[in-house]
Amino acid sequence: MKRIALLPPTLALLAATMPPPATVLAPSEIVAAAPGKDWVTIAPADMLVMDLARDARGVARRVVIQLLPQPFSRGWIGNIRKLAAARWWDGTSVNRVQDNYVVQWGDATEKKALPGGLAKVPQGEYESAAVSLNIIRPDTYAGNGQGGGVGFYRGWPVAFAKHGERTNGSHWPIHCYGMVGVGRDMPPDTGSGAELYTVIGQAPRHLDRNIALVGRVISGIEYLSSLPRGTGPLGFYEKPEQRVTITSIRLASELPEINRPQFQYMSTESASFTKYADARANRRDPFFIHPAGGADICNVPVPIRQTH
Amino acid sequence: MKRIALLPPTLALLAATMPPPATVLAPSEIVAAAPGKDWVTIAPADMLVMDLARDARGVARRVVIQLLPQPFSRGWIGNIRKLAAARWWDGTSVNRVQDNYVVQWGDATEKKALPGGLAKVPQGEYESAAVSLNIIRPDTYAGNGQGGGVGFYRGWPVAFAKHGERTNGSHWPIHCYGMVGVGRDMPPDTGSGAELYTVIGQAPRHLDRNIALVGRVISGIEYLSSLPRGTGPLGFYEKPEQRVTITSIRLASELPEINRPQFQYMSTESASFTKYADARANRRDPFFIHPAGGADICNVPVPIRQTH
Repeated sequence: MKRIALLPPTLALLAATMPPPATVLAPSEIVAAAPGKDWVTIAPADMLVMDLARDARGVARRVVIQLLPQPFSRGWIGNIRKLAAARWWDGTSVNRVQDNYVVQWGDATEKKALPGGLAKVPQGEYESAAVSLNIIRPDTYAGNGQGGGVGFYRGWPVAFAKHGERTNGSHWPIHCYGMVGVGRDMPPDTGSGAELYTVIGQAPRHLDRNIALVGRVISGIEYLSSLPRGTGPLGFYEKPEQRVTITSIRLASELPEINRPQFQYMSTESASFTKYADARANRRDPFFIHPAGGADICNVPVPIRQTH
Repeated sequence: MKRIALLPPTLALLAATMPPPATVLAPSEIVAAAPGKDWVTIAPADMLVMDLARDARGVARRVVIQLLPQPFSRGWIGNIRKLAAARWWDGTSVNRVQDNYVVQWGDATEKKALPGGLAKVPQGEYESAAVSLNIIRPDTYAGNGQGGGVGFYRGWPVAFAKHGERTNGSHWPIHCYGMVGVGRDMPPDTGSGAELYTVIGQAPRHLDRNIALVGRVISGIEYLSSLPRGTGPLGFYEKPEQRVTITSIRLASELPEINRPQFQYMSTESASFTKYADARANRRDPFFIHPAGGADICNVPVPIRQTH
């Protein structure tokens, strides 16, 4: 019996029957072939490094989060930089894991005092002024066929508003898998940035513009997505011992250089990314019979690579 | 510091400020209020019950899969019924867990002989003749704006083709979170149904019409989605001891009645489902500021409830 795979195990195996390579590269092959100039180094000051307590087998668990660029969510991101500098998260924990939805972390006691100087960020900052997008497509959540849509801005998936809405002209980041946002209470200005979550399932796009996004997990999401699901309401852990301790959260720029990870993202303005996005929407590698002719923006994840 | 939640913890808390209930019910409240006539009992012969070996703490792990109705994927589903009756999966294992993609199970040795009488199912059965759909919407993957779209058929999300394609008139099931499909080798007719996978991330809709779907997990997906990710190519486990043993897979109809689970799905032709689908696309419960005005079909999961 042959090995049954969902994707071709090696391209070499198929070389004999392949049409010219330009038409059949898989997205992963386009990424592998992208020249150095199509990659952008992420500044250490724009990465949060979250170290979890070692697992039961003693394995270290590091999660790296890239923060959103200007002009998005600046108030909350400013707070997050202060919280990391104050070492506020050290000793807090992952408290909620809801299947096909989110993992959430912060202070389970909800009594830990926040450092001074945090901004109270208004609801208006869920959206920003217009930015210049690449690879614009229609989108169900941003007003399909009514002038809204989605595209990419400096490495990030971004949506823009329907014509005629009060939000006309506004742009906002998108709740794709791995995006990181700010938990809040009912009033929209109650999220400080101390309580964070990441998406571990189908993109919950109904949260767009209803809750602030601040970044995305670029490494180690499996240490969050594979945690046992919580059995309390909303997936909160019911017993304190189920929580996973956060050893520390720091900006990468605050870590000693030897312990500082380095990552790059593929420029979404590059020729490689244009090819990659097309390949994600039209799979022509040999496994596929029907190229779809389109792709949800959350099915075009921006390629990330670790360089140190 | 107040409890920070992503969703309102209780509706009672908010009753004082609520507009008339008809306009503000959350999807979960519409489900809770649906009358008995809007639920359909799933026949025991249409459910696969997969029992995994107990976890390290001795907890039993049962996964229940509902099989697709006529006319979809009949060849593979026929094979699956034969494999279950032959107890073919007993002692096989979960072998692959790829983050934000799939969990896959079957015979890791790839040498276990299949029972006789299995059909070799042709590629044409990835699609079916037209069925009557409810709540039809445009869709990126089915030819947005070109006459294709998606809707619901007897409890399932289904897509239909663009006009003018050779597949005109055809309908096919959709790769949403939790859907179960048939692993295959490169030729499209090589999947028997012995090697199965389920989706544990963003809907991989590019697989629609490229691989056969046969059902969906309706209970216990957390026992699959929270497994450690495999570190080999495509997320396969590298060491045999990492695999999770499948104790048995049976049709529910083959189990003793005392051990037979009972489930219902919300009729997608019911008034409750129409309200639910609208609420998923336009969240008006108090947490939300901006109803999206639309929803991806995979963000309108058909409600399921266990009755025994």
